[in-house]
Amino acid sequence: MANYFTDNDDLQWYFTKGIDWEPLVSITEYDFRSPDGHKSVAEALEFYREVAAMVGELAADEIAPHAAEIDREGVRFANGEVTFPKRLAGIFEQLKAAELHGMCLPRELGGLNAPMLLYYLNSELLARADVSVMAHHGFHGGIAMALLIFSILEGSTEIDAAQMKIVKTRFGDAIAEIARGEAWGCMDITEPDAGSDMAALRAVGEQDAAGAWFVTGQKIFITSGHGKYHFVIARTEPAGDPDDPFAGLKGLSFFLVKAYEDRPDGTRVRFATVDRVEEKLGHHGSVTATISFDRSPAQLVGKRGEGFQQMLVLMNNARLGVGFESIGLCEAAYRLARDYAAGRPSMGKTIDKHELIADYLDEMRTDLQGLRALAIHGAWHEEMSEKERLRQRFEPPADDVARAALDAKVRRHKLKARRVTPLLKYLAAEKAVEMARRALQLHGGNGYMKEYGAEKLLRDALVMPIYEGTSQIQSLMAMKDTLGAILKNPQEFVRRRAQAQWRATTSRDALERRVAKLQALSLGVQQHLMTRVATDKVRSLPGKPLTSWPRAFLKDWNPKRDFAYAMLHAERLTRILADEAVAELLLAQARKHPERREVLERWLDRAEPRCRFLADEIETTGDRLLARLAGEEPAAASAREAS
Amino acid sequence: MANYFTDNDDLQWYFTKGIDWEPLVSITEYDFRSPDGHKSVAEALEFYREVAAMVGELAADEIAPHAAEIDREGVRFANGEVTFPKRLAGIFEQLKAAELHGMCLPRELGGLNAPMLLYYLNSELLARADVSVMAHHGFHGGIAMALLIFSILEGSTEIDAAQMKIVKTRFGDAIAEIARGEAWGCMDITEPDAGSDMAALRAVGEQDAAGAWFVTGQKIFITSGHGKYHFVIARTEPAGDPDDPFAGLKGLSFFLVKAYEDRPDGTRVRFATVDRVEEKLGHHGSVTATISFDRSPAQLVGKRGEGFQQMLVLMNNARLGVGFESIGLCEAAYRLARDYAAGRPSMGKTIDKHELIADYLDEMRTDLQGLRALAIHGAWHEEMSEKERLRQRFEPPADDVARAALDAKVRRHKLKARRVTPLLKYLAAEKAVEMARRALQLHGGNGYMKEYGAEKLLRDALVMPIYEGTSQIQSLMAMKDTLGAILKNPQEFVRRRAQAQWRATTSRDALERRVAKLQALSLGVQQHLMTRVATDKVRSLPGKPLTSWPRAFLKDWNPKRDFAYAMLHAERLTRILADEAVAELLLAQARKHPERREVLERWLDRAEPRCRFLADEIETTGDRLLARLAGEEPAAASAREAS
Repeated sequence: MANYFTDNDDLQWYFTKGIDWEPLVSITEYDFRSPDGHKSVAEALEFYREVAAMVGELAADEIAPHAAEIDREGVRFANGEVTFPKRLAGIFEQLKAAELHGMCLPRELGGLNAPMLLYYLNSELLARADVSVMAHHGFHGGIAMALLIFSILEGSTEIDAAQMKIVKTRFGDAIAEIARGEAWGCMDITEPDAGSDMAALRAVGEQDAAGAWFVTGQKIFITSGHGKYHFVIARTEPAGDPDDPFAGLKGLSFFLVKAYEDRPDGTRVRFATVDRVEEKLGHHGSVTATISFDRSPAQLVGKRGEGFQQMLVLMNNARLGVGFESIGLCEAAYRLARDYAAGRPSMGKTIDKHELIADYLDEMRTDLQGLRALAIHGAWHEEMSEKERLRQRFEPPADDVARAALDAKVRRHKLKARRVTPLLKYLAAEKAVEMARRALQLHGGNGYMKEYGAEKLLRDALVMPIYEGTSQIQSLMAMKDTLGAILKNPQEFVRRRAQAQWRATTSRDALERRVAKLQALSLGVQQHLMTRVATDKVRSLPGKPLTSWPRAFLKDWNPKRDFAYAMLHAERLTRILADEAVAELLLAQARKHPERREVLERWLDRAEPRCRFLADEIETTGDRLLARLAGEEPAAASAREAS
Repeated sequence: MANYFTDNDDLQWYFTKGIDWEPLVSITEYDFRSPDGHKSVAEALEFYREVAAMVGELAADEIAPHAAEIDREGVRFANGEVTFPKRLAGIFEQLKAAELHGMCLPRELGGLNAPMLLYYLNSELLARADVSVMAHHGFHGGIAMALLIFSILEGSTEIDAAQMKIVKTRFGDAIAEIARGEAWGCMDITEPDAGSDMAALRAVGEQDAAGAWFVTGQKIFITSGHGKYHFVIARTEPAGDPDDPFAGLKGLSFFLVKAYEDRPDGTRVRFATVDRVEEKLGHHGSVTATISFDRSPAQLVGKRGEGFQQMLVLMNNARLGVGFESIGLCEAAYRLARDYAAGRPSMGKTIDKHELIADYLDEMRTDLQGLRALAIHGAWHEEMSEKERLRQRFEPPADDVARAALDAKVRRHKLKARRVTPLLKYLAAEKAVEMARRALQLHGGNGYMKEYGAEKLLRDALVMPIYEGTSQIQSLMAMKDTLGAILKNPQEFVRRRAQAQWRATTSRDALERRVAKLQALSLGVQQHLMTRVATDKVRSLPGKPLTSWPRAFLKDWNPKRDFAYAMLHAERLTRILADEAVAELLLAQARKHPERREVLERWLDRAEPRCRFLADEIETTGDRLLARLAGEEPAAASAREAS
């Protein structure tokens, strides 16, 4: 019996030492005051461990051995309905029987009240077996939790604060149905002519005279789109200034639409149709559908015009989810490569002893450990922030001071989650592709053949950098957040930079110095980008101190034009930011746990030359290209580059 | 009517200006003395152009539109025989009707006497349409040429020197059959337990009492292995010292084996069986077969024990072929990405105007131009070297002085071809994967779907870094050649380094200085690697001048152990060497043709930070890993790294 949880030393380390369980368990278990809840952190942890071990065994024994079959069989689409082949259907019966779909829901809604972090860790285990199974599984519990959270936030959930219980919630039936494993949901965002550009969305939400809402439009690339419950983003307000690409976002609202309803007589009434199921490169156990809504009855979720913000809440969690999914795939690729290399002799030794191959494997292992640090950190803070925010509904703050303190706490967690989420989505997805390709390459000719499984991992991996926001969109987000923060608080930036430079030379610990040096490099690159953006905007600025820029800078601000240089280098900056974030997290681990120093050392060995390179590219290239895009003569750019 | 030759500005530039046609056409046309040959370079060139335009049209109109179908249908294997679906069979009928298979053969053997370079350029055009069609096509004319060349070299071809004609050649029937498009050949090297490690090959060649040869063994991953004519490498001598991984190479010989013969009554007699046809990730129009020989009648080609050397001749051409194949795929990926980006609006402009995407496209275009420079240079020198070598058979040198001069000429061309061939195979194959993946990524969700064709390009590309020697093997070869040359002639190395450093500061032209600086960086890295290898070998060496090393160095030489550090960094070194080689070639072009300065500039903009990075990685990383591989304590390595 294999087990993807117990066979993973790094995951075991997180369970035992690496995760700060205490605050997370406490807030999840209402400070252990709930009569039917766990009574201590240790007790809860024991339970989480059992769940993870059960999922680890299920993944290893019941899913992984059938991954090739799932890939080969795919799903069937006929007469507007999707069906799963027997094997895949059987696996979802097992997941249902294991009661995994309601895992994070409160007990009073039929759940186990487990933290989202456990759900994410389970996702990694499932993804290691088959990402398409993990993805479809994710559209059960994840959507149920979203229904609950949106309802609490819009105030349509009734709470018994004394009992720490939910009495009634707006989408209770849907949540219960999903928790029982009898339905699932999905997120309907993309349209044929609007992918990353959400301002171009054209689906419409309309209200009739009686106030009832209806949604009309077509959505494409909907993962698990054959589901019953659809979160649909649609336009309820006319688009604003057509020249402003962001104006359109304000006119979007968020709806819950039932795609169908099954009558007691066994017939199905459809309110939305599945037009098509995509033939994809990989991810074959997961449905990617085109859905049409034609005045489909809808429930407005939250306030009209807030669709984009609500979508972001879902999206943040989905991005973390893709992070863990990618890590599961990386783990599968790394182990496949490592085990093949350890068993394949060439020129007198197994190929894992050949320097080039050993170097690949070492980098894969190091990347995996770095990614896991990033993912767990992001998920932990995201959950803490959400739960601190929701706690207010159960225990309203006593006064304004308490409220402000709580708000600040929520903000701090949110900020930390927000910082790493695009970095995680970016890096984990890119690494999934890179590691799967390495696993394939390392198999030589065998890697190109279906039977070894390496090519399947790569096909599956290639969607990671595309869905839930492409790698390019993650990069632009990370860049805008980073530079925006400098403009918002230049004093803080100057202070951080000085501090990093100081620590880079004065810290007693060599590893502390190396991390500080990496931070200083990152901040230097940020300063460079700001300076260039500023120069392009206001020629006179760079002569003045950074702290005096914001006012001049924001006058007549045009992000489309003014950020050109930073946009060009957004992906490079993102790679630096990710390297830096991981180094900081591993350093924090190493301070407490000496056994992690070696992990940090390996990370820094790789990250240092890489970040120097990216900084070099950012600082020395791009002018020629930007001049061409701006329609300038190349000579002008050359002169600037040479100067 | 589309045309992949006339629509390609870079290829047009090479035909008009970039290729030094004069010596190549002269030697191919026996200095225009042949009565039925072309009468001038211009006349020959006019003809080559017509051929290329015909192939360009065929590729664009008759192959590319069916690439998705070829991919979907694959090939059929039943009862030990492979059949092509109707479409694919039809395409090969067209190629046959166009008389492309005998294109490079001498006229007296039914050919058009075109240079191999034209064949390679055609390969790029075909590969842009579908790489699997190109690959199978390549196993026609390429094998016919090999049969002829091997026969000339072993002396089994009778030549009428006065008429500049071949009168009779050992494999004449096979050549004629292939030229007519009625058969093709293949190269049978890999075995189940021997891929890159050729010393581990176990197939056997035996001679009976009457002197007849027979081959026994199984070969796997044989491209177009359902063919009639098999070049088979098999062991005729017992393996040497089992501890020496290279000893086994000397026991290999080279055979031609007919897999079958068709009787006049329509029945087929088989001498070798097709056991299996692989289910591959891509390349679906090309057959990858497992072949078994069981005392199959064979013809020994050349001398026994020279199998490895003969294989290398074939392999060199095959590697150049994969280079052009990869470039064709890169061209397809680049154009698919560019055209999609130019038509896809997002946030108020088409995505090719978004900085990140524009940067990708610019890099793809630049890489393509660099790769083509490398490929054409390599193919030109390879062909010149082969033809100068063969010319001796037609026109024996008058005396020893003339012979020595000719030998030197052959060696010079050979050296140039040998330098770039692994760099081309490495870089073009890796770039094919990278560009196909970028094309996919740039399509967003559409890229993951079958109908847009991007995913097919990536699936097809992924075999390039594997077959005809993996990227890792190319790297090790390039590294060994490069460091070996230093050991052979350290004076020359010292001189080149001084010269590069001098030109890097004194050249009047900025581009000359930049290229010299890149060369100096590359030579510096080589020196570093040599120093480290030497230090690991003989602690006292680095204190002495480089020119005094060879003797001490080669004493008790163990490449397995002594090259560990260089092996670890072989791929990084290879990337530097490739960047440097391309920069030199583009500089040579720019000196003659000012319009190429811009191409060189774009190349250097990318190559400079990249090479600085690779040098940085080589110089600062790896000790920890090597120590682990050597079983040392990590502390010792840390100390060395810090020192």
